[in-house]
Amino acid sequence: MATERLRGIFTPNLVPYTPDGGINESELRRYVNWLIERGVHGLYPNGSTGEFTRFSPEERRRIVAIIADENRGRVPILAGAAEANVKETIKACEYYHDLGVRAVAIVAPFYYKLSPKSVYAYFREIGRNTPIDVTLYNIPMFASPIDVPTVQRLSEEFERIVAIKDSSGEIPHMIRMIQAVRPNRPEFSFLTGWDAALMPMLLIGCDGGTNASSGVVPELTRRLYDLTVGGQIDAAREVQYDLVTLFDTMIYQAEFPDGFRAAVELRGFLMGRGRQPLSEEQLSDLTTLARTLQCMLSTHGFTDQPIGGCAIGDPTARSGEIDSIVQNVVSELRRRGLM
Amino acid sequence: MATERLRGIFTPNLVPYTPDGGINESELRRYVNWLIERGVHGLYPNGSTGEFTRFSPEERRRIVAIIADENRGRVPILAGAAEANVKETIKACEYYHDLGVRAVAIVAPFYYKLSPKSVYAYFREIGRNTPIDVTLYNIPMFASPIDVPTVQRLSEEFERIVAIKDSSGEIPHMIRMIQAVRPNRPEFSFLTGWDAALMPMLLIGCDGGTNASSGVVPELTRRLYDLTVGGQIDAAREVQYDLVTLFDTMIYQAEFPDGFRAAVELRGFLMGRGRQPLSEEQLSDLTTLARTLQCMLSTHGFTDQPIGGCAIGDPTARSGEIDSIVQNVVSELRRRGLM
Amino acid sequence: MATERLRGIFTPNLVPYTPDGGINESELRRYVNWLIERGVHGLYPNGSTGEFTRFSPEERRRIVAIIADENRGRVPILAGAAEANVKETIKACEYYHDLGVRAVAIVAPFYYKLSPKSVYAYFREIGRNTPIDVTLYNIPMFASPIDVPTVQRLSEEFERIVAIKDSSGEIPHMIRMIQAVRPNRPEFSFLTGWDAALMPMLLIGCDGGTNASSGVVPELTRRLYDLTVGGQIDAAREVQYDLVTLFDTMIYQAEFPDGFRAAVELRGFLMGRGRQPLSEEQLSDLTTLARTLQCMLSTHGFTDQPIGGCAIGDPTARSGEIDSIVQNVVSELRRRGLM
Amino acid sequence: MATERLRGIFTPNLVPYTPDGGINESELRRYVNWLIERGVHGLYPNGSTGEFTRFSPEERRRIVAIIADENRGRVPILAGAAEANVKETIKACEYYHDLGVRAVAIVAPFYYKLSPKSVYAYFREIGRNTPIDVTLYNIPMFASPIDVPTVQRLSEEFERIVAIKDSSGEIPHMIRMIQAVRPNRPEFSFLTGWDAALMPMLLIGCDGGTNASSGVVPELTRRLYDLTVGGQIDAAREVQYDLVTLFDTMIYQAEFPDGFRAAVELRGFLMGRGRQPLSEEQLSDLTTLARTLQCMLSTHGFTDQPIGGCAIGDPTARSGEIDSIVQNVVSELRRRGLM
Repeated sequence: MATERLRGIFTPNLVPYTPDGGINESELRRYVNWLIERGVHGLYPNGSTGEFTRFSPEERRRIVAIIADENRGRVPILAGAAEANVKETIKACEYYHDLGVRAVAIVAPFYYKLSPKSVYAYFREIGRNTPIDVTLYNIPMFASPIDVPTVQRLSEEFERIVAIKDSSGEIPHMIRMIQAVRPNRPEFSFLTGWDAALMPMLLIGCDGGTNASSGVVPELTRRLYDLTVGGQIDAAREVQYDLVTLFDTMIYQAEFPDGFRAAVELRGFLMGRGRQPLSEEQLSDLTTLARTLQCMLSTHGFTDQPIGGCAIGDPTARSGEIDSIVQNVVSELRRRGLM
Repeated sequence: MATERLRGIFTPNLVPYTPDGGINESELRRYVNWLIERGVHGLYPNGSTGEFTRFSPEERRRIVAIIADENRGRVPILAGAAEANVKETIKACEYYHDLGVRAVAIVAPFYYKLSPKSVYAYFREIGRNTPIDVTLYNIPMFASPIDVPTVQRLSEEFERIVAIKDSSGEIPHMIRMIQAVRPNRPEFSFLTGWDAALMPMLLIGCDGGTNASSGVVPELTRRLYDLTVGGQIDAAREVQYDLVTLFDTMIYQAEFPDGFRAAVELRGFLMGRGRQPLSEEQLSDLTTLARTLQCMLSTHGFTDQPIGGCAIGDPTARSGEIDSIVQNVVSELRRRGLM
Repeated sequence: MATERLRGIFTPNLVPYTPDGGINESELRRYVNWLIERGVHGLYPNGSTGEFTRFSPEERRRIVAIIADENRGRVPILAGAAEANVKETIKACEYYHDLGVRAVAIVAPFYYKLSPKSVYAYFREIGRNTPIDVTLYNIPMFASPIDVPTVQRLSEEFERIVAIKDSSGEIPHMIRMIQAVRPNRPEFSFLTGWDAALMPMLLIGCDGGTNASSGVVPELTRRLYDLTVGGQIDAAREVQYDLVTLFDTMIYQAEFPDGFRAAVELRGFLMGRGRQPLSEEQLSDLTTLARTLQCMLSTHGFTDQPIGGCAIGDPTARSGEIDSIVQNVVSELRRRGLM
Repeated sequence: MATERLRGIFTPNLVPYTPDGGINESELRRYVNWLIERGVHGLYPNGSTGEFTRFSPEERRRIVAIIADENRGRVPILAGAAEANVKETIKACEYYHDLGVRAVAIVAPFYYKLSPKSVYAYFREIGRNTPIDVTLYNIPMFASPIDVPTVQRLSEEFERIVAIKDSSGEIPHMIRMIQAVRPNRPEFSFLTGWDAALMPMLLIGCDGGTNASSGVVPELTRRLYDLTVGGQIDAAREVQYDLVTLFDTMIYQAEFPDGFRAAVELRGFLMGRGRQPLSEEQLSDLTTLARTLQCMLSTHGFTDQPIGGCAIGDPTARSGEIDSIVQNVVSELRRRGLM
């Protein structure tokens, strides 16, 4: 079991839709190849970015099967395996094991907010029964949190639990987890899901990330990883700054993950309309956002400028406006002592 | 379409499990009869209390089918119809319509926290396509909130949307909704899901409640409703106080809805082990809780005292301790400005 | 010590300013008389509405001295006595005792968010040393919360602690406090500071309120109190609805307490510019708000309509817009799981 | 005005008390010398660590006067200048200017949670009238937040506003501020107040920190700064890890700042009893905490072990327990979606 740590950038896979809302298999296959060619270290279907909650259990299995088939073993796959209850989740682990993926990733139970004891009991049941390596998935914004003592205890009791993906974005929290786990499980892997802190997370000890932006600009996310791991701090910082601007725009300017979907469209993929209905106003906002994103992507050479061009300083200006809106909401939250 | 408002106490149905974790159909039927005989005005399967997220789509349909069959038209049924996406939700509406239930209740999308615009777009799609009356279900603790302007707009645009069940427990919020909706939709119904505020909610204008405690002590919840609606304020207040103590104990002393499940066991039903795994410590805590609940229920004559009896003042004393624990957590939350 | 419970509506006193930012004594005296003539049961200087944090220690004493002098014993006075530390607070208690006010009100320490243990220790020191009756002041939005076990313990240990003013607005919390305290201290008083829930709070057992709206429309707040206490539920509900609309407009449409100050100006008092600087945009918003408030007040006959009149349905329409804005912020907070 | 950026570690000064609760001047002078001798780059009286809210306006002035006098120009001083209102704050700026300190630091208004517009208006008034350089102080946990657009606007409009101290601890927020401000104000300084993220904050572009731990272990905080700025990432990471453990213990195991005060006692200073009363239980907990801290400090050679010694692995073990408690609270907060 003394496997290597999971390392590098695992891309959370978006799912292209057909016009009638089904899975667009051919486009998904094309997208997988494109990502691998651009250097991502691994793939991660059925995560939050991949809208796993909006699919049926059968669809979730099919998505992983398509990706595994297209991948042909080129890169490791982390398959999201959370289902309606622990029994169904374990069955999904067995299925993905049979598919030959590297590991599964399992989010803590959601909807109900469970206590640490229940989160432990849930993963204990999985740890005892899984035939495949398991990555814990902590995303307190959406699901019951997995706290440090729970990660520590699970890591000590179950060899099959080999990693945690943490999307909280909090540096001290990551440090506390690493301090608690690494002495006893040196091969346990720590992955961050918060793109806006990727560089500092790597510098304080993370092994990699599952970053939605790597599905849009795999070149840039990969470069940030390489520069940081290579100790080129000043160059890495510049890329991290750019990534914050792009990430903020994609994550705060549309319902998640629609901003990321719009950006992948600009990279040349037919993503289709999402499964969550949108109002006319929201569709119009998405068009505006797409233009903003195109200007941003064009400054990196990933796309042409939109027709009509980007005013000089345009992308920055717009990103300034966007920042301002974002900040207003955030500050309102803070003002009320809620953030 | 000028139907009567939904009124009274709709009981959120807990689901008894068989030893292997399946739906215990015979016990569920027995429980349904018991509730109707004790005077609840309606039934409400597939709500949060009914653990709808822990069942497969097929199981959710089967639960409602069993209950509708056993009910034989005696009381109106509100069937929880939320599925993985809007298309599947509309299909569920059609199925429940064919079963002949009174209406469906649909929680706003969860996991992702959606904006009011997206919540509107989601229910608009449903409003346009549902063959059956729809109750909006607002539970901001667990799902994307449905705000006042959204309720108002949906109520004005879709006759099929006939009610809201609100579990926020906030009096001013309920007043704002009633003020916004009732002038244009006098038959629109407002139901509260927060038992600890049932009496004042009815007094400020609510039409009824979907209250988990009515699945445990239907006699008490029904009495509180009758006293309040009948204007017997002083008597109602006493019952409301008792209900707060009981409700606090069931909701804060175990993972939801395990405290309610433990109490229904005491009323004579085999609920079985829940689908969420528990640690040994949690199982032991549940045993202690059951004893506390039995003392509480015995003071109302709903059960005998537990073997060994309840010390004089015991239930109160214990409930004091419990309150103290609850309050410590709550105050910690408040201290940090988070509640 | 078997005094009567504090009962009725205690008006939190706003402080009029002179053009140079000092206390406008003559206007304050005129305002005090106006309030007493309109039937408020008591006065409450140096509360949150009275901006106590924006005055020097000497100014806080002077405000109470002026009000006590003008009152001439007509109504009981609750004097806010919180100072920079417990020693200074006790000195303030002694000063207000010498002035002959009925009691002091003391908010829990703020800025730092203290634990229940520290809040207890703080009030214990006060309880041991105060020469005057003390009202605890719980406002978790702004200060360290005072939880139920702390209220219970303080009420049992210190006869001088005779009441709590609670501005959380949560019905179940109020019920829990009353249940915990009243058996041992039947004369202990419970006052609510949240106007939008005044009627239901009185119905579940509160003795009165310290309500900012009573400084603006004392006639209306007093009427709500009388109707509710008199058991005229339907009539009380109508007044409570109106009060919610007015209160929401004053509290959410400007920095607190500027909306209340603007409304008191409309009742004929020169309140002057507040001590918190405002931008030009905010000043302009306040002018717009004043017009909205004037239309609202005119429908109750408290003011004339503004010059140019109110469009038919205008106040409601505007209040609709306002509600909508308020709701958008609130729903954004909820969407992020923060409220 | 093209001054140098503020750089390095500014120590927030704790204030030693005499037995009767006054300022212990001689001990404060001794402490100031000790800090400067151990290499801190600057001093920062009247911050949150310095309990500025618990002093009278006169005491706050006296604290800075003593420190400035003892400093004799050796290191720059940032003097906390927030008073009850903007007029008094500006007067304090004038006083500290006359004392010859390097700059003042001003927290946004607290108690009331103000909107960004009001925060802007407050600092605009200060920017227009201050005779001394101003550092904005953002601590959203305790005071109204200062958002990115507000920092940007103030930095562009007022040369006297030269820095921000941010205690939010959020990396992406710091990046957004630097991106918004530095292009137009290259000499503007960014200081972090969150010790648990000091190293990554410096690596993403901060100029220094105002870190409470530097008042306890100035040698360690200074070393972390030097290693990080010197590009010795691996060595810096180890120190950062140690600092997280120590910081967590001091900040979460007692009311802030009592854990820091207890630790400074261990370094040889008579800090005296704080102004916030404590219960007997809390005093006992502080004694236990002091022993834990002594074991931690002894591993760094800053103190001897406590009498009776530290069990092998003791400090770590205890810190493990502590972490566990901390994590339980944090996870409870998260579970409820509140953090």
